Amino acid sequence: MKHNFGAGPCILPHEVFQEASKSVVDFNGLSILEVSHRHKDFVAVMDEATALVKKALNVPEGYSVIFLQGGASLGFLISALNMMRESKKASYINTGAWSKKAMTEAKKAGFEVLEAASSSDKNFNYIPKNVVIDPSSDYLHFTSNNTIFGTQFKEMPISDVPLVCDMSSDIFSREINVSDFDMIYAGAQKNMGPAGTTLYIVKDEALGKSTSSFMPTYLDLKTHAEKDSMFNTPPVFPVYASMLNLRHLIKNGGVQGAQERNEAKADLLYNEIDNNPLFEGTVAKEDRSNMNVTFLMNDESRLDEFNALWQDNDIVGLKGHRSVGGYRASMYNALPIESVQVLVELMKQFTSKG
Amino acid sequence: MKHNFGAGPCILPHEVFQEASKSVVDFNGLSILEVSHRHKDFVAVMDEATALVKKALNVPEGYSVIFLQGGASLGFLISALNMMRESKKASYINTGAWSKKAMTEAKKAGFEVLEAASSSDKNFNYIPKNVVIDPSSDYLHFTSNNTIFGTQFKEMPISDVPLVCDMSSDIFSREINVSDFDMIYAGAQKNMGPAGTTLYIVKDEALGKSTSSFMPTYLDLKTHAEKDSMFNTPPVFPVYASMLNLRHLIKNGGVQGAQERNEAKADLLYNEIDNNPLFEGTVAKEDRSNMNVTFLMNDESRLDEFNALWQDNDIVGLKGHRSVGGYRASMYNALPIESVQVLVELMKQFTSKG
Repeated sequence: MKHNFGAGPCILPHEVFQEASKSVVDFNGLSILEVSHRHKDFVAVMDEATALVKKALNVPEGYSVIFLQGGASLGFLISALNMMRESKKASYINTGAWSKKAMTEAKKAGFEVLEAASSSDKNFNYIPKNVVIDPSSDYLHFTSNNTIFGTQFKEMPISDVPLVCDMSSDIFSREINVSDFDMIYAGAQKNMGPAGTTLYIVKDEALGKSTSSFMPTYLDLKTHAEKDSMFNTPPVFPVYASMLNLRHLIKNGGVQGAQERNEAKADLLYNEIDNNPLFEGTVAKEDRSNMNVTFLMNDESRLDEFNALWQDNDIVGLKGHRSVGGYRASMYNALPIESVQVLVELMKQFTSKG
Repeated sequence: MKHNFGAGPCILPHEVFQEASKSVVDFNGLSILEVSHRHKDFVAVMDEATALVKKALNVPEGYSVIFLQGGASLGFLISALNMMRESKKASYINTGAWSKKAMTEAKKAGFEVLEAASSSDKNFNYIPKNVVIDPSSDYLHFTSNNTIFGTQFKEMPISDVPLVCDMSSDIFSREINVSDFDMIYAGAQKNMGPAGTTLYIVKDEALGKSTSSFMPTYLDLKTHAEKDSMFNTPPVFPVYASMLNLRHLIKNGGVQGAQERNEAKADLLYNEIDNNPLFEGTVAKEDRSNMNVTFLMNDESRLDEFNALWQDNDIVGLKGHRSVGGYRASMYNALPIESVQVLVELMKQFTSKG
């Protein structure tokens, strides 16, 4: 078995792979890949996936759950277009690469973009606390977890203007209060399912209120909310596999259970990083991500040795992003604590050998 | 075995289902669903899928092949935005539901949309031949095959302005001359693969030339051409399954082989429709689609009996679209001629019993 610490697309539960594999050859007598999206068997899949999202996150009445395509990269645009109101000003918390891309698309959508806070002064190694929101902003946008820099909002920002969040890399990993948000969007490929679908959770009151003069049909969330994500052919298999994964989540204690397991994994690895003289974390302790643990090895002369060690022990995906260097251990919901134990043991072993 | 005449998502080759199923549990030691899109094994998949499209369609030098998301419904917008030039006028051939949706999105993109021809006078049961193209049009758009109405362009329209085609439902079913087009786009879920990816074949000269003041990053095809479809996380599994299907196509005589088989299937079924007094086709003979055969049963009193007959014989997906009524036999590349023989035999049997 490989220990998959990849940043995404990433590990999902073994049972999900088994069940999805089976359905590619037999889903009620057909392959899931050849079933019409209008067939009752797939309509049931879409309905269940939607219901499971609502259950897992305690989505209150008055919110729509939508499965689309295009990833967060299209979500940057869709969120901005749909949230445009009178002022055409939008405030963004800049916590690195993904926030910056979101800001770029808001500008392209026609917004005056205001930086409400930024951690660019320290290469985004912390979450800025001093958030200054222009009260005329149509919304405040933030990225709840930053895969590249390994930071995570532990407390969601407090805002008098509508709150919009790109939650791609930590949705379903911890409990959240959906009613704090006007819109949450998330690419599937971390904790929800395989790549190829993008989740939107949007307050119904926020639908159909855009003042954008440019609103193509596919980019209008109202289109998709009214058609239960079936305006056009949805990405059948990614939605199906997401449904299987959400079923698995609910059966295993839901988001609360996942959060407890994620905290235990994070404690285990950060503890080793802090106590092992050869390693150091790159992020301010209070802002460390439970999803993506970024760290450095202090002895450059032994880099090859450490890389060979983890690679020889079936660990994959540990290489850090070029913006930070070093290592990044992504520990999404499906990564078992046993994989983290293997990594920690190797770090101990490596140091004691030195 | 079921005989899947569904209009899409639809039948793919059995071997593709088998291989795709296997890779969901084991693709070089991981699941294809958990492989990073930046891993060399998936980069190789994307490269091969791109190369296979080029090979299958003899795509000449100077064209880019791109895998995106969003279906043709987003393609209506993307094609219009990317093809916008000085005049901001665009000519469309209106052959029914999909053409009309394409025209709507071009208007939303800021075009003055001109109807170069239409078959709306006869509920779109033919392909209009008298195409009048305003020479100042930025492009001429058409839908090569019309799934709902069962019509298909047998000859591509001749145009002095750049030609853009929504080829969703007959790409890879017959030989085409890519150099006639500035842009071809197609949702995967007929002859290319499962739902969840959308193919664009675009002349490089046409990239980056848009005069649209609105050009978000994801909607700009130049973005994706420059990044080899890896600007953001692609829909990994739909691209992978498409690659498997394209491999299967090439191994089985390529597009030329598929075209011969598709013509044989169409001849078989249309011949029965024309010779069986209980059935009649809905489309002008010269414009009949080889992909979607629309037909009516003449004796209303025996509808239930006919429906029971095909359903009892493992045929699925034969119900016609509500806009036409009756029946629609979709016969995409992967549908074996044996399935058509089963249907034709049932039609004969049914009539002889009457």
